[in-house]
Amino acid sequence: MHTRDTRRARRAARAALLSVPLSLALAPVLSSGPAAAYEPLVEKQSVTIPVFTTQGGETIPEMTLGWESYGTLNAARDNVILITHFFSGTSHAAGRYAADDAAPGYWDSIIGAGKPIDTDRFFVIAVDTPVNLGVHNPTVITTGPATLHPETGAPWGMDFPILTIRDFVETQKALLDQLGISRLHAVMGASMGSLQAYEWAATYPDKVERVIPVIGSGWADGDLIAWLNIWGAPIRLDPDWNGGDYYAGTPPLRGLAEALKLVTLHAQHPEWSNGVFGRAWADEGRDPADGFDHLFQIEAALDSAGAARAATSDANHFLYLCKANQLFYAGHGGGLYDGLLAIEAPVLLIHTDEDLIFPGDAVRETGAIIKSDGTPVEIVELQGTRGHLDGVVSIAQAGAAIRAFLAR
Amino acid sequence: MHTRDTRRARRAARAALLSVPLSLALAPVLSSGPAAAYEPLVEKQSVTIPVFTTQGGETIPEMTLGWESYGTLNAARDNVILITHFFSGTSHAAGRYAADDAAPGYWDSIIGAGKPIDTDRFFVIAVDTPVNLGVHNPTVITTGPATLHPETGAPWGMDFPILTIRDFVETQKALLDQLGISRLHAVMGASMGSLQAYEWAATYPDKVERVIPVIGSGWADGDLIAWLNIWGAPIRLDPDWNGGDYYAGTPPLRGLAEALKLVTLHAQHPEWSNGVFGRAWADEGRDPADGFDHLFQIEAALDSAGAARAATSDANHFLYLCKANQLFYAGHGGGLYDGLLAIEAPVLLIHTDEDLIFPGDAVRETGAIIKSDGTPVEIVELQGTRGHLDGVVSIAQAGAAIRAFLAR
Repeated sequence: MHTRDTRRARRAARAALLSVPLSLALAPVLSSGPAAAYEPLVEKQSVTIPVFTTQGGETIPEMTLGWESYGTLNAARDNVILITHFFSGTSHAAGRYAADDAAPGYWDSIIGAGKPIDTDRFFVIAVDTPVNLGVHNPTVITTGPATLHPETGAPWGMDFPILTIRDFVETQKALLDQLGISRLHAVMGASMGSLQAYEWAATYPDKVERVIPVIGSGWADGDLIAWLNIWGAPIRLDPDWNGGDYYAGTPPLRGLAEALKLVTLHAQHPEWSNGVFGRAWADEGRDPADGFDHLFQIEAALDSAGAARAATSDANHFLYLCKANQLFYAGHGGGLYDGLLAIEAPVLLIHTDEDLIFPGDAVRETGAIIKSDGTPVEIVELQGTRGHLDGVVSIAQAGAAIRAFLAR
Repeated sequence: MHTRDTRRARRAARAALLSVPLSLALAPVLSSGPAAAYEPLVEKQSVTIPVFTTQGGETIPEMTLGWESYGTLNAARDNVILITHFFSGTSHAAGRYAADDAAPGYWDSIIGAGKPIDTDRFFVIAVDTPVNLGVHNPTVITTGPATLHPETGAPWGMDFPILTIRDFVETQKALLDQLGISRLHAVMGASMGSLQAYEWAATYPDKVERVIPVIGSGWADGDLIAWLNIWGAPIRLDPDWNGGDYYAGTPPLRGLAEALKLVTLHAQHPEWSNGVFGRAWADEGRDPADGFDHLFQIEAALDSAGAARAATSDANHFLYLCKANQLFYAGHGGGLYDGLLAIEAPVLLIHTDEDLIFPGDAVRETGAIIKSDGTPVEIVELQGTRGHLDGVVSIAQAGAAIRAFLAR
């Protein structure tokens, strides 16, 4: 069954698909469609909140976060679109830092001059979240367990306060306040970014004019809570994790890599794993039947992806992100549906029924609750073979709907 | 949002559902429907194969396996139905070992006097697989890494040969040969049991008269291969696993418990996790927002289920089972579809579209391939909220179809 020809065909197919991000579940991707990348070079900036108080009542001195923007803030400061990022994402939503960057920001296909989120018209801004996964990625600026407590000079570790999606929103609001921006033309984000978008609209209905949640629902349900627990298990099992106290020693990279393998697979769809890899072996001549270290190709690919991503990530940050997502329901602190009912801004929901993390039913239920008191809700379904990840790599399919929604 | 009433209602719902096996993904269950349990007490027996040669060419001296049967073998020895078990299952398919057993075997709802698999007519036999997960369960008799090599007197550990689903079939054939049984009226199994059923029909088309694969497809595809890798990751990360060499020390129970949590969740469906647990807290007064050890109820339930199951299981056996499942495609050793095309016996495929481990598309594709050369294939879809697990707990829905299929 493993003829050289089918192997070659599979490798060609794999190579083609590796040009979109196998290496991470929800990662920066090459732009799709005919449009060029957002043209001006992007400059990462940073904001420091001198004292940030969490929803849980704890304080974080010198909360510093990275941000970037595309387009120009108008004089009225009313042309602002906030992009909130996903679990393993960053504020790099569009454009390139240098002309020879291998790839632009993850949603470059829809953000730029003349694109659906038109930077000739809008000032688009994106912010690295606190406890950002990619804390060791040089383009990420964040504050979390791996960063230094300004008073002790040592990493916070697990003494860092637990944060919620609402806290993420408050950091973004602090930045916008510093920039003198009091209203958002729209807030849009994918996956964990959609949770921030719901939270913005639920918490500040007077500041948010439009909401575009992509591949996400209005609360973390029991199933997602359980999966997020299981995502973190490999980290907790790695002896190098040491209860989160590893900054003076060896970081738990094996556990983190396994956790990222799981996220990668969970964010995909069987059509991808079967179509690209099938039952191909990782190494010709090393039959997986002959040893536990003889792998199938998809096992080796996930190993590589997990290890590559782990190199710029932090295990404690991963666990803090899992916790923030588990704790989420729109309108933090009220009844389960109160936040969704508080949303006044029109909503454009974008999702795919092939999503294993935020299933279509949960998204439709979210839409129905928001709509139940008269708030306009429009739903666009993406097509593709990548599952959850289609919300990143296939977003251009919703380009016309996004353009029209922003123009209304 | 966490009122006492909604908590109470959720607890009642949880208690009701815990009477079916939350504690393991695919475990013995209470019978459903009006029929009583298979009545005569069941006696576990054992068979020893003096020298078993694996498909990989290695030999295992004294392969001893448990088996049990229900009904009476007729004089012609042609009334035999073989039941093959799932990943975390055993040969205890029906009946009770003692009158006060809490629950009968897992498919008791369809096996017994007057039931669809009628023990007044059929001799139903089930065999513990080699490398059975529940090697420390006193009712399981198996041979694998945790059992003693007869020559060294020490556990085999990772020196135990890698086995395939075809090897499992060969152990069952050796038992049937010893009993003088040369033909099967039918072979039926769920999940990993369905793989054995396909393999029986593909390898011995002259010995198998009917096949009933439940919740399984004709090959492990790339997606399942990847998930099986990830199922095993927590074990490999547990320092007590020690490369599989732990029988003289502490077994990797934490890793094994995490692996079993993952299997448990994967074999369920969101309707279950959301319907039973939702966002309820594990402990009143311990808000999950206040600490990493403050859990949601579903996290605590999965922790308990994983730990309980780990106590009677073995980590290396888990990894050998993952490998056997990864290596599976019907007709071991030929082309990918050759085995399915070799099946001559009529096939009754039972599955559910809510299955996350063996999705409906894969099952339908399997059926289409078998049918393509004229072999009769009938498909029954189960309804339910338990996903993959409905193939065990809701099998009675297919009772009439099974009865009719066996009578044809």
